[in-house]
Formats: sequence, C-alpha cells, structure tokens
Amino acid sequence: MIQASHLGKIYRGGWGTLTDLYQLTMAYGYWRAQVHERRAVFHVSFRSHPFKGDFTVAAGLALVADYLQQFAFSAADVQYLGTLKGSDGKVLFNETFLHYLQRLRFTGDLHAVPEGTLVFPHEPLLRIEAPLIQAQLVETALLNWMNFSSLVATKSARIREAAGTDQVLEFGLRRAQGPDGALTASRAAYIGGADASSNVWAGQYLGIPVRGTHAHSWVMVFLDELAAFERYAAALPNNCTFLVDTYDTLEGVKNAIAVGLSLRERGHRLVGVRLDSGNMADLSKKARKALDEAGFADASIVASNDLDEYSLRTLKDEGATIDVWGVGTRLVTAYDQPALGGVYKLAALADEQGQWQPRIKVSEQSLKTSLPGRQQIRRFVSEAGYPVGDMIYNLDDAPAEGDTSFSAFNQVGVAEMPAHEYWHDLLVPIMEGGALVYTFPTLAESRTHCLAQLTAWHGRPEKPYIYGLDLGLSELKESLLQQHKS
Amino acid sequence: MIQASHLGKIYRGGWGTLTDLYQLTMAYGYWRAQVHERRAVFHVSFRSHPFKGDFTVAAGLALVADYLQQFAFSAADVQYLGTLKGSDGKVLFNETFLHYLQRLRFTGDLHAVPEGTLVFPHEPLLRIEAPLIQAQLVETALLNWMNFSSLVATKSARIREAAGTDQVLEFGLRRAQGPDGALTASRAAYIGGADASSNVWAGQYLGIPVRGTHAHSWVMVFLDELAAFERYAAALPNNCTFLVDTYDTLEGVKNAIAVGLSLRERGHRLVGVRLDSGNMADLSKKARKALDEAGFADASIVASNDLDEYSLRTLKDEGATIDVWGVGTRLVTAYDQPALGGVYKLAALADEQGQWQPRIKVSEQSLKTSLPGRQQIRRFVSEAGYPVGDMIYNLDDAPAEGDTSFSAFNQVGVAEMPAHEYWHDLLVPIMEGGALVYTFPTLAESRTHCLAQLTAWHGRPEKPYIYGLDLGLSELKESLLQQHKS
Repeated sequence: MIQASHLGKIYRGGWGTLTDLYQLTMAYGYWRAQVHERRAVFHVSFRSHPFKGDFTVAAGLALVADYLQQFAFSAADVQYLGTLKGSDGKVLFNETFLHYLQRLRFTGDLHAVPEGTLVFPHEPLLRIEAPLIQAQLVETALLNWMNFSSLVATKSARIREAAGTDQVLEFGLRRAQGPDGALTASRAAYIGGADASSNVWAGQYLGIPVRGTHAHSWVMVFLDELAAFERYAAALPNNCTFLVDTYDTLEGVKNAIAVGLSLRERGHRLVGVRLDSGNMADLSKKARKALDEAGFADASIVASNDLDEYSLRTLKDEGATIDVWGVGTRLVTAYDQPALGGVYKLAALADEQGQWQPRIKVSEQSLKTSLPGRQQIRRFVSEAGYPVGDMIYNLDDAPAEGDTSFSAFNQVGVAEMPAHEYWHDLLVPIMEGGALVYTFPTLAESRTHCLAQLTAWHGRPEKPYIYGLDLGLSELKESLLQQHKS
Repeated sequence: MIQASHLGKIYRGGWGTLTDLYQLTMAYGYWRAQVHERRAVFHVSFRSHPFKGDFTVAAGLALVADYLQQFAFSAADVQYLGTLKGSDGKVLFNETFLHYLQRLRFTGDLHAVPEGTLVFPHEPLLRIEAPLIQAQLVETALLNWMNFSSLVATKSARIREAAGTDQVLEFGLRRAQGPDGALTASRAAYIGGADASSNVWAGQYLGIPVRGTHAHSWVMVFLDELAAFERYAAALPNNCTFLVDTYDTLEGVKNAIAVGLSLRERGHRLVGVRLDSGNMADLSKKARKALDEAGFADASIVASNDLDEYSLRTLKDEGATIDVWGVGTRLVTAYDQPALGGVYKLAALADEQGQWQPRIKVSEQSLKTSLPGRQQIRRFVSEAGYPVGDMIYNLDDAPAEGDTSFSAFNQVGVAEMPAHEYWHDLLVPIMEGGALVYTFPTLAESRTHCLAQLTAWHGRPEKPYIYGLDLGLSELKESLLQQHKS
C-alpha cells in the first residue's frame, strides 16, 4: 500500500509553532482588533516556472492536508510563546490569547489541484478559505510543503522526460536537507516519475520501491575486486548489480561477467553493472559490448555521478548505452534552481455582512502584483485530450458556459478557446469545515496521473501554451490597481 | 538554554532504516561473510569548498552524536526489511540477520572537529571507528547531517562576513526542505553567525532568538496602511517594525513615522521599518533621512528580498543605510551551490590479528582518490593566534613533536611551518564504546567559537592558507596507489 503522507509517521507533531513568528504576532493583532473571525481567502501560487522550463508539477497536497488536520497548539507550545519578549522586555502575548490558541483548530475549507497535475504561473495551487487568524497561521507550513514538493516533482518530471522509458532511481538521501528533506524529496521525485529510491524510509513510510546493492567500501574491504563480487554474490545472489569502478571500470566489468557466469550456473542472474565515474558514454558502450558478448544482453547498465536532465541528454546524444539512471544530489536539491518562489496571498476578505471584498497586493514589479478574488482554474482540453489553455477565474463572477475568451499572460490581446473545446475546473474540494472530504489517491496513482499529464503535454499540437485571466477577473484586477493608484 | 540537537524533540525515531538500501545489503553481506565485526575506520570529508570560497564551517556534529546514541532497529523496522525482495522474487534478508539487527546498537568511537570550526578539503570532519557493519550502516545519515549543516553554516558565515557587525536574521522556513530542513538550516545559520530566526521551532526546540512583526497581508486586511500600522501598534506596541512596501515604500515610511510619534507619546518606540522590494539602496537612504529628520535616529532599517552575501555587498557598496538583513531562500537552500559533496570513505580495516590495514579508493580523478589511514588534523597557529596551516596525519605514524614539514595540496614541493608555531589537533573524542564522552557546547558557544575563528581567518597575515598531508601519510598514499596500479 502506497501511503500519501509521512508526517505523522516520522514527526512528533507540535505543528502550531511550525511557523514564522510574524504569523503569530499578526494573529495576536487580528485577535486584539477583533477581526480574527472574518472569513478570508488565500491562495498558494508561484510566479514563474523553475529551471527555465515550461511546466510545473503540483505536489505536496497530502502533506498539507495531514498538517491542517493535526494543526494545534499544545500546552508546551503556548508555554514557550508566553516567554517571548518585545522591545521593552515585556511579554508579546497575553494569557487570554495563549488560552485561545490552545483551543484553536483548523476549521476552514481547502480546495486544491491534485498532486501530479501540471500548473502554470499565477495559478492557485491551493485555495484556503478560513477564519482570518487560521488562514494566516498556516501560511508558512503550507508554503514549506508546497514549494519544495512541487520543485522536486517538476525536476523529476524533467529527468523522466530526458530518460524516456529508461528507469530512474532517486539516490539523494545523503545530500538532502535532513531526514525529512530527503523523504519529501523521494516522495515528490516518485510523483514526478522516478521509479524507485535508495532511501529505505521512502519504502517503509511511503511504500515507494527501494533499490540498492553495494558501494566502493564493499570492494575496498575485500581488496581483490573479483573476490569482493564473489562474496557479494554468495550472500545476495538475487541482488547482483555490481559497482565496477572502484579501481578500473572495464576490469570491473570483466569481474562482474566472471561472477555473472557462476551466478547463472547456480540458477541466478547478473542484474547489471553500475558505472560511477569516468567517461560514461564510452565506458557504457564498452561495458555493453562486453556484456553482450558474454551472453548478458539482459544485464542493465546503471549510471550515477551527479546526473541530471542535462547530462542525461548529453549522454544519450553521445550514444551511451545506459538503461538505468541513478540521480541524487541534483534531483533532491533541484540543483540549478533550489527554491520555488511560491507565495501565499490574501485575495478576499469577508466584510461584517459576510460579503466578499477582493484584495490585491500592489508592487512596482507587475509580476509581484497579486490576483484578487476567490479563484478557480478552468483547463481547456482538445477533443484528442491535449491541453490547450488555462483560464483563471473569480468564483464570484464565473464565466458562463461557452465563455471562452480570456486575457492571456503570454499573448497580446484577448485569447479565445475554440467553442467546442472540452474543459474542467482543476481545484477540487479537499477539506470542508476542517474535515477531510477527499479520498487521497495512492502515490502510485498520483505518479500515473502525472505521467499521463506529461505525455499529453509533450504531445500537444499547439505551442506555446496559453494561460491567463478570465475577462471578469482581469477587469477586477485593473480596477483594484486603479483604486490603489488614486 | 540553547540546546545542541533537536532530533529527539521533533522526530519519532526509527533511525535504523534511515539509510540507503545498499548499506543494508552490504551489512547483510558482511555478516554472511563473517567480516562484520572487524574494526573499521571511516572519515567524513569533502573535496572542495562550497561557493568558490576559501573556507568551510564544520557543523552537524550534535545531530550525528544524537543519532548514533539512538541508532537501533525496531520490530517494525525489521518487519519492513523482511518484506524486501530480490530479482528472483525471494526475500533479500534471512530471519537470523533480522533478529541480529534488532539487537544491534552503535558501540564504536567517534572523534570529530567541534561545530563552528573552519575546515579544509580532504580533512576528516568525523572519524568513526567501529565494527565494520555499524560503521557502514550509519554512513548515509551521517552524511545527510554533516553535508547540509556544514553547507548552511558556511553560507551563513559568508553572509556574516559581508554584513560586518549588522544584524542578520534567517527567514528561510517557507523555502526549505520540510520542517526539519528548515530547523536544521536555522541551527546551522545560527552557528555560522546569524543573530536570530523567524522560525518559532528554532526558538522553541533550540533556544535560538526569534523575530518577526507583520507581513503584507496585515496591511491588506485593513486596506488603509496608516490604520493598519495604528492597529498593529495598539496590539503590539513593543514589537513595532513596520513593513512599508505594501503599496508605496516612501508613503509607508511616512505612515510608520506617524505611528512612531504616537508610540513615543505612549512610552513605546518605533523599532524600525522593513523594505521588501524596489531599489533598496535608494529607498534605504530616503527612509533613513526621513526617520532621522523625524527624530527616529535609533529606528533600524531592515531589508529582505532574496538577499545573499553578493547582493548584500552590492547594497553596501551603493551606500545603502540598512542595519538589519533578513536572509531567507538563498541562505537555507545555499542557493548558488545547494549541496556540499561530503563523502564517507573507508580508510583502515583491522585484520584478523587486530592490526590496522590502510585502505584507499582509487579514481582517475585524483581529487576523488581517498586518503588512507586513521587520520587527525594538526592545526598550526601563529603566536598572535592566526591560523597558519593544517597538516593531516596518520594516527599510526604521527609526526614527532617539532616535525613541521608536510606536502601541501596547494603548493609545489614540501611546505614547512616555522618551528616555533603553536599547534593543536582538531579532532576530539566525542563517543567511546558507543557512549558520549563529550560535553556539547551550547549553540551560542558554537556560534562564538565560529565567529572567533572567522575573525582570525579574515585577519590572518599569510594567504593562501597552506594545508596538506604529513610526509608519512603522503608516502602511505603513494605506496597504496602504486600497489593498485601494479
């Protein structure tokens, strides 16, 4: 069984204080000003695709939902908060507020794009509708999970694209940010298309397939490489992929073949060899030839050594005969862009009569100006199932059936979806009144969803992809901007 | 009280399976081959400084020691391991081995460089001496903690250097790899010289000072910025640093000053203003002038917005009047080099008589060839206290008192330390026979140690710094290389 979230399995909890201090000082201020119960809508979105790419894979939702269900302040949490002092040496928070926090739970609604879905700049990945104080307090943790998971899922999808149908193994535990950084990376990498992980926690807590055989140290212990492979085969005859570069790669391949022949005699098989240094294109071709000539055409060649989608493509261009790609550091750290700049912006606040008032964050950089209103994404799909365009619209001013014109970010003037296009709305209900109303897919299902999306994406007939704002939302944004300028 | 480690506070444990699967298959192989109890020595080292810099700050040791003391396989862990299958569909591990794992604890010795110490390529940051099976199983987790913590401590020290005596605040929780990635980053950033964090967990679990006031959303809730600042000051008069760029930065400064005047009347103070967008050099000068003219010469100007040591220096060069630097994404992700390539290499193995046999990993890339023997670092320091050079030596062939010649990596021929230099050995005993024998400094003490090292480093009279191998170790390495070539 593939699990959706690992939070409760590895962490003790204490989620209330997993936040930036300013969320708590604002929460206190809202409570003091008695606006804390007003309903607010915030969205999580990002401003540009990572890796100079043309898509982003949404991920992290199950972690978000798990966290929101467990969100609470313990007695120890509020005791710590009670010790915090301001600029005059007096406490920041009064006792009544700290008691209030201990009773606080998340009672809001969450709508979100399912994990593994392709998303675009400015689109709402999550929509939180909750009492202002709750929506504010959960900001930091939500961004923490969505930013990193979406970043790594996207990186993984790019590596999957470069690898084609080859296997991709995620090997990043030793270079990730702590045990959970690694586990969250394994999770997101799997959603984005990796086949397996080296991380045993990923198997134990999330049901991701795990892989591994031996390191250089195994060969160094036994000194003689052939003896080392023989010893390994004696102990683990059903897990024989030999790392062949401890001393000399092609000699290593010969030793692997020698042991492969004896494995075969004993009814076992040489699964493959792993290359970890040197000129991989050249070495893989020589290893392939040697393996084939010795009758091991079904033995795989695994490669590892700071690989990513760029080096993988180069190796393929050079004719490397590599079947399995071990990708570690550059996947789990998203090496060439190690952060997704996801943000969480207030978009609407209910007035005292409960009417939604849209809100906008103005910036000199138009990219940083936020979108107002309670948002949804409408995705248009061609009859053949290819994505054609995305329209962000305001729930309180939804486009009529058949209304297919919108203001595209990446096109001058108004874009028009052909009237016959199929469409569906991407954000689905996840939590209502603090309770889960969504059945999470397994991770394997999220991965399948992602792979199907990627196939449609790479096969789409029209490029570039058009996404933007419904005309009503576009007008709302302009009118709020004008209000702020005047 | 500043705590050294947060592991037991946030994690449930389950450390035995926090590893790459290949460590477990090797462990099984060693056990089957009955070499698992032979004593082995491994070191953690790295091959080049991150960020094209000239130093690295060692960090992560308290996490390592905490982990090693808690290292164990639970019944649930071995139950999971018992489900893993090989290429023939049969289990990988037999029952006897799984029972053995449940009794296994770490009973070895750990020597290490204290946290906050400056270290150099190829130097052993940790030396593990333990039964081979234990030393192998803990590799991945040790690298996970040491790599990331040392990387972020180094980044933080670089930012501290650029900031001079200005305050540095770490704001990275929302862009780090999960809750623990963020907390570990806060910890390492503090050791490297940051003054405080926005992350409440960092205060609660590690005793790091926390800071925070309000975000754009606060201003957007109240719409009118002046009213928003007034409401904030009413609720939190002792925490008034106003974020002034929600609509227009200089208008924001005016509003902050207006509220500052009324705060002063009520016996409170305007702590500062925060800039988060726009031309920071220009805006900070205008804000400084406005604050000074209004009698708020003691109000700070805080800056944030994707800052790092490079943009910080540029802003200082442009005459920015910024007192406090909020550094988030680029610090906690170590943006321009998001991984330290630390490795863990077997350096010696006891033979059946208990005699140490040195081991070496050969590579076509000489940078990747490992150092043999049980290692220690001798640091030479001038009479005035400045570091002069580092010599890595083999414990089993230690240089004699007064032996100051060594083979430097970054210099042709043999380097010689002046005979009168002072020296000390950097690795100290941390664990013996699996038990802690070291009193961990508080995080604040490790930070002070780091800052003192940085001051000495930046003030040292001779550059570049010379580090390399004691002549005995250099000869041992060469002779093992020759053995492997022949």
